[in-house]
Amino acid sequence: MSGIIHTCDPGKELDRLTHGVPDGALYAVIPDSCAPILLNNAKGRWSEHAIKIPIPDGESAKNLQTAEIIWQALLKGGATRQSVLINIGGGMTTDIGGFAAACYMRGIRYINVPTTLLAMVDASTGGKTGLNLGCVKNVVGAFHNPDATIVSPVFLKSLPYKDLLSGYGEMLKHALIKDKRCIEKYLSIDPQALDETEWSDYISESVNVKRNIVSKDPYEKGLRRILNLGHTAGHAIEALCMDPEWQGVRTSHGHAVAWGLVSALVLSHIRHGFSSELLQKTALYIRRLYPQIPIKCDHYPRLLELMGHDKKNPQHGIISFVLLRSPGDPVLSDNVPIEEIHTALDITRDLLGI
Amino acid sequence: MSGIIHTCDPGKELDRLTHGVPDGALYAVIPDSCAPILLNNAKGRWSEHAIKIPIPDGESAKNLQTAEIIWQALLKGGATRQSVLINIGGGMTTDIGGFAAACYMRGIRYINVPTTLLAMVDASTGGKTGLNLGCVKNVVGAFHNPDATIVSPVFLKSLPYKDLLSGYGEMLKHALIKDKRCIEKYLSIDPQALDETEWSDYISESVNVKRNIVSKDPYEKGLRRILNLGHTAGHAIEALCMDPEWQGVRTSHGHAVAWGLVSALVLSHIRHGFSSELLQKTALYIRRLYPQIPIKCDHYPRLLELMGHDKKNPQHGIISFVLLRSPGDPVLSDNVPIEEIHTALDITRDLLGI
Repeated sequence: MSGIIHTCDPGKELDRLTHGVPDGALYAVIPDSCAPILLNNAKGRWSEHAIKIPIPDGESAKNLQTAEIIWQALLKGGATRQSVLINIGGGMTTDIGGFAAACYMRGIRYINVPTTLLAMVDASTGGKTGLNLGCVKNVVGAFHNPDATIVSPVFLKSLPYKDLLSGYGEMLKHALIKDKRCIEKYLSIDPQALDETEWSDYISESVNVKRNIVSKDPYEKGLRRILNLGHTAGHAIEALCMDPEWQGVRTSHGHAVAWGLVSALVLSHIRHGFSSELLQKTALYIRRLYPQIPIKCDHYPRLLELMGHDKKNPQHGIISFVLLRSPGDPVLSDNVPIEEIHTALDITRDLLGI
Repeated sequence: MSGIIHTCDPGKELDRLTHGVPDGALYAVIPDSCAPILLNNAKGRWSEHAIKIPIPDGESAKNLQTAEIIWQALLKGGATRQSVLINIGGGMTTDIGGFAAACYMRGIRYINVPTTLLAMVDASTGGKTGLNLGCVKNVVGAFHNPDATIVSPVFLKSLPYKDLLSGYGEMLKHALIKDKRCIEKYLSIDPQALDETEWSDYISESVNVKRNIVSKDPYEKGLRRILNLGHTAGHAIEALCMDPEWQGVRTSHGHAVAWGLVSALVLSHIRHGFSSELLQKTALYIRRLYPQIPIKCDHYPRLLELMGHDKKNPQHGIISFVLLRSPGDPVLSDNVPIEEIHTALDITRDLLGI
């Protein structure tokens, strides 16, 4: 697996990593809407040499059309198998830029510069790239590792608070996967009060949880599935909030995952004796930190349908959960009965005050 | 690398290989226009279970839109990572079906059943999958090996003669890469006079040349480039014949490669002392077997431009050739001067009676 570089000067690291890449062989994918601010935070010589590939922003643009924009730009610039692609942006940019790199001439090198907390701790490392077809997330993709991932807290200062919270949802997940000490620590943090150095330390600890698991199972044959903790319900809620009939606001990925973590811990308590005290403590923290998601009983059938479509379930129609006996001790539950999921959703709503 | 199964009963082999694949998990990509005849040649129980995915036929449909047709059909059928895709058709089908399998949920299993000679000896084995962007061939793709490739001469009896000749162009290439005895043998064959058993033997020998090379260099880092013998000029001619201004008929891939082989042998003679006698013998054979391609001096600038766009050239603008000191002794020429290419094109046209 490729390395992660933690730095306060991402432009300098890009200069170092792209030193010697010939003219015309360096490309940078950057979401159009926030290109000026991102480039300003990563100033360097590299920027004069790189051919910029602007792409539309947002999860809805993580599609084949955007991948084709990147491929056509590479082709127009005369990119070869020796060319290097830099992806500067959030998870949408690193996912689709990584996929474009994976498939251009059957694979060229790329560097990720995640600029959101979510992308720093999750999407930009681990080699999973992809795009969405309609509302089905990441259904087209490839495993293709970046040469390097440059993680820098300088980008966080311009990040909206809701995006900070989204990334923090994945950090809570990593902490639960690691151990009791780690989740206790992360439950004591106020994300709004951290300075750059503290962020750097917490991000580094969090992403290393993921990297340790990915290094043992790069192609998601087994162990890596534990990183889906909170994602069975989380993905379903995220998709539900994209339904045209949905009345509330759209929910960020990490916010939905935080909700999904609570429901996974409820099931963990019911099925595997996960500590009631830690479940309640986690739920209370999430209830205080995140806005409410107005899930009602009426939404359950749609949520279950969305869970059944989860591509990570090995057999069609069966709903799988990653659960925990205790922090750091995961267990895969491959066939949770519908009734039990209903109960877990009820209790989750109670705990989160919905 | 996956295995090749030579058989006269491809349906039986498909039954054997897909035994135990659950209902709803078996899919078959088949070009729409020739589905009845192909399915008739591969009768078996598998066909009742497989969800058929019809795709448009022809190189011009080897594009992102067709890949999306396959992905959407897999999604609609509820395909998971455990699903299996069967690709039945020519190189276009095995290339794009293989790519769809490589990227659906970051990789599912697939089986190739090549039904053209060209696909049997070339496209269906080696793990290279892909599609075209505009007129640029295979610029988007992935390395992804099929579980198995089922090669059967039963499909050849319904193959138009020009398609048989197309495949034979790649077989001549493999023979030149193997050794003198092999190319002498292939130059003595009348492809129209072979029976099924003879085809089976020749195809098996030919595809093994490719497989030996691919097994030593699966990701085309070096050695595998020798399989591009004849392809620098061959690809350019194939693309030239797709230009809107082109006056003649469209040239098949293997036909263009046969032409490209002659120009590569001319350069091999000039630069590396390749036997003049064998060059002339090969050219005479190709001249007798294949229709003429009316290349004129006026086409040279466009041909060179098309050679310069060859994605397999490591640096933009430099034209690379695979040449031979003698059969079985390849040499990579990474920077052949334009004047020398002009001379080689002149001599090639002379030898081919144009």
